[in-house]
Amino acid sequence: MAYVNDNYLKLKAGYLFPEIGRRVSKFAKENPQAKVIRMGIGDVTEPLPAACISAMHTAVDEMARRETFRGYGPEQGFDFLREAIARHDFQSRGAQVQADEIFVSDGSKCDTGNILDILGKSNVIAVTDPVYPVYVDTNVMAGHTGEADSGGRYAGLVYLPMTEANQFVPALPEQKVDIVYLCSPNNPTGMAASRSALEKWVDYARKNEAIIFFDAAYEAFITEADVPHSIYEIEGARECAIEFRSFSKTAGFTGTRCAFTVVPKGLTARTSTGEKVELHGLWNRRHTTKFNGVSYIVQRGAEAVYTPEGQSQVRQLVEFYLENARLMCAGLKQAGLTVYGGVNAPYVWLKTPNGLSSWDFFDQLLSKAHLVGTPGSGFGASGEGYFRLSAFNSRANVLEAIERVNKFVQG
Amino acid sequence: MAYVNDNYLKLKAGYLFPEIGRRVSKFAKENPQAKVIRMGIGDVTEPLPAACISAMHTAVDEMARRETFRGYGPEQGFDFLREAIARHDFQSRGAQVQADEIFVSDGSKCDTGNILDILGKSNVIAVTDPVYPVYVDTNVMAGHTGEADSGGRYAGLVYLPMTEANQFVPALPEQKVDIVYLCSPNNPTGMAASRSALEKWVDYARKNEAIIFFDAAYEAFITEADVPHSIYEIEGARECAIEFRSFSKTAGFTGTRCAFTVVPKGLTARTSTGEKVELHGLWNRRHTTKFNGVSYIVQRGAEAVYTPEGQSQVRQLVEFYLENARLMCAGLKQAGLTVYGGVNAPYVWLKTPNGLSSWDFFDQLLSKAHLVGTPGSGFGASGEGYFRLSAFNSRANVLEAIERVNKFVQG
Repeated sequence: MAYVNDNYLKLKAGYLFPEIGRRVSKFAKENPQAKVIRMGIGDVTEPLPAACISAMHTAVDEMARRETFRGYGPEQGFDFLREAIARHDFQSRGAQVQADEIFVSDGSKCDTGNILDILGKSNVIAVTDPVYPVYVDTNVMAGHTGEADSGGRYAGLVYLPMTEANQFVPALPEQKVDIVYLCSPNNPTGMAASRSALEKWVDYARKNEAIIFFDAAYEAFITEADVPHSIYEIEGARECAIEFRSFSKTAGFTGTRCAFTVVPKGLTARTSTGEKVELHGLWNRRHTTKFNGVSYIVQRGAEAVYTPEGQSQVRQLVEFYLENARLMCAGLKQAGLTVYGGVNAPYVWLKTPNGLSSWDFFDQLLSKAHLVGTPGSGFGASGEGYFRLSAFNSRANVLEAIERVNKFVQG
Repeated sequence: MAYVNDNYLKLKAGYLFPEIGRRVSKFAKENPQAKVIRMGIGDVTEPLPAACISAMHTAVDEMARRETFRGYGPEQGFDFLREAIARHDFQSRGAQVQADEIFVSDGSKCDTGNILDILGKSNVIAVTDPVYPVYVDTNVMAGHTGEADSGGRYAGLVYLPMTEANQFVPALPEQKVDIVYLCSPNNPTGMAASRSALEKWVDYARKNEAIIFFDAAYEAFITEADVPHSIYEIEGARECAIEFRSFSKTAGFTGTRCAFTVVPKGLTARTSTGEKVELHGLWNRRHTTKFNGVSYIVQRGAEAVYTPEGQSQVRQLVEFYLENARLMCAGLKQAGLTVYGGVNAPYVWLKTPNGLSSWDFFDQLLSKAHLVGTPGSGFGASGEGYFRLSAFNSRANVLEAIERVNKFVQG
């Protein structure tokens, strides 16, 4: 008699985005004339950079001729891409990351979930609150938690609140933790960790032999000099951090699929009998056993991001969304709302007016302004009373949305 | 202090293909003039079908324009592909599989490993011997085994020998098992399960509430009428089987990356307290939480496989490799070798001559005939004394290889 993984049954049924989808569909059906603007899911809207398009056409043509056809590639990614990443994303910033420490994958969502495979069951795990739900759900699936309470917090996880009260800078945990997820620039708050904040975390991790899972998917949106682009800009981070990066938001690859994870050589954790084991070797074993590499065509597209044309096109793309975010912050402030984020990230995190709950604000904004955002409480208990708007949209929609929010707040 | 997953330390260090690579590199370095023919790894050599190339060019162009750009797609795959798969691969054969039971992924290697996520720790797992190593290694990683013995067999797994003695048809297990991996047409033996053999397995699984993981990656190579293309051609299989399929060997997608897994609705397993839970829902939850869909461009390429041109081009491709396999079987038999497989699969499984061990035969074939194959013992203890040759190669190389084997056996 086959048995299921009972841990899956602890997952709460309603994942955030399907619930949003359900409410939006219902509204759209009942109000077919309403022009709904969707700023809920953080998905890009602008086309791929021309350099990527051109590189992928060339790669497709290579697949059409026997002499240039590519079968299985290295599971870890082609050297041409790993080397370009190491040089441009790390070494150019003084972060000592080598090409063979980079594992190319089809998505950071996958990597942040799969990384748990190589770690033990006894680790104490810390997440921020609010948080990207995948970190929590994958720990639930792996059996690292007990049941959820009525507020949605799972027993066994350590939650680190990020609210207005601490200016969205999570405090170091009071109890000892073994693994901590940090996302900077942050999804959902749009706030970014300063150098000194990251230094404190690296210091904490080294003292406690903890590991930081550093999610830098929104790194390209950083505008302030004080905000590190990589955790490896912090001294000592190679001993205690794994970094996740993605082409999704940088180059618009959400539907094209390419990301990478850095596992530094020398980064270790303990066996149950206390010996140190390098995580690089374990992750390499997982990656080569349970993954078969990213499409050659896509890897050539990603490589093109690092050409001079690619860099300038990506910069333009990011600037476009950042200008959206700036307009949104300014417009919402003018409407009298309290607004965070949007400076180093494509997300604006606003306080719901009049003490409305996140979902009540969602419903009112949808029904009165025909505007869709994401209720902050969907990202965790401490997100209650907040609301996320994504700057991934056309300029026209952004301007229209700002106007509607203004009318809504006034009215 | 962070802990690793100790189960990884049980994995044997030398995975088969790296060891082959090491020996071939050494030989090539010492014999730079030798023209080595590689029939070891089962990787395709011919270019992609023209229909796929054309569809991917169109898709790349769509990504270049805002109006046709695609961001996140459904994690389970686009309907256009899921519907084409359901119609062509299943319904046309009388197998009642619906589009929403198909989960598009980036590889069967990933899926056959990841499927364990949704299943419990207490299941008794059976694998054939010889076997595709990923099935075993992913169970080791998941903590479903004890240590390996000196022959490489892990404690806790049930091994079902497939040898000349049983004509490579594994017997039903003597003890009760909860999950069994079946691969047909088989990698590595190249032999395929008949309808009656599969009926016995489905009957066994239903009686024991066991689940069959049916790997049909080589389905396109079936030539005999008695061999089912899908487990769902067998009555009752929807209640007990998950099927894995791939575009890798069918359409040459090893470097392009697309596959799919069928999880029928109604297929259940038990919680630890004995309630039945549908695996479709659990897999859907895993797929949407730990995966973000296959590249839109690649899915359009896969869809083109099902167009009339695509079908005829894929047929040609498969026929080309099958003719290679036929030539190899005939040539090796003529050389006096005992040969299996090659009729419904692109693999030829030969008995090493003169009782040579698999690795001794490997070394001799490499040094004397400059030909690389895969030692059967690398696939499991019962593979000892056998050797796999892949038919994925150019015709010229195949003919040359046959000649070299002939000389080698004579000489």
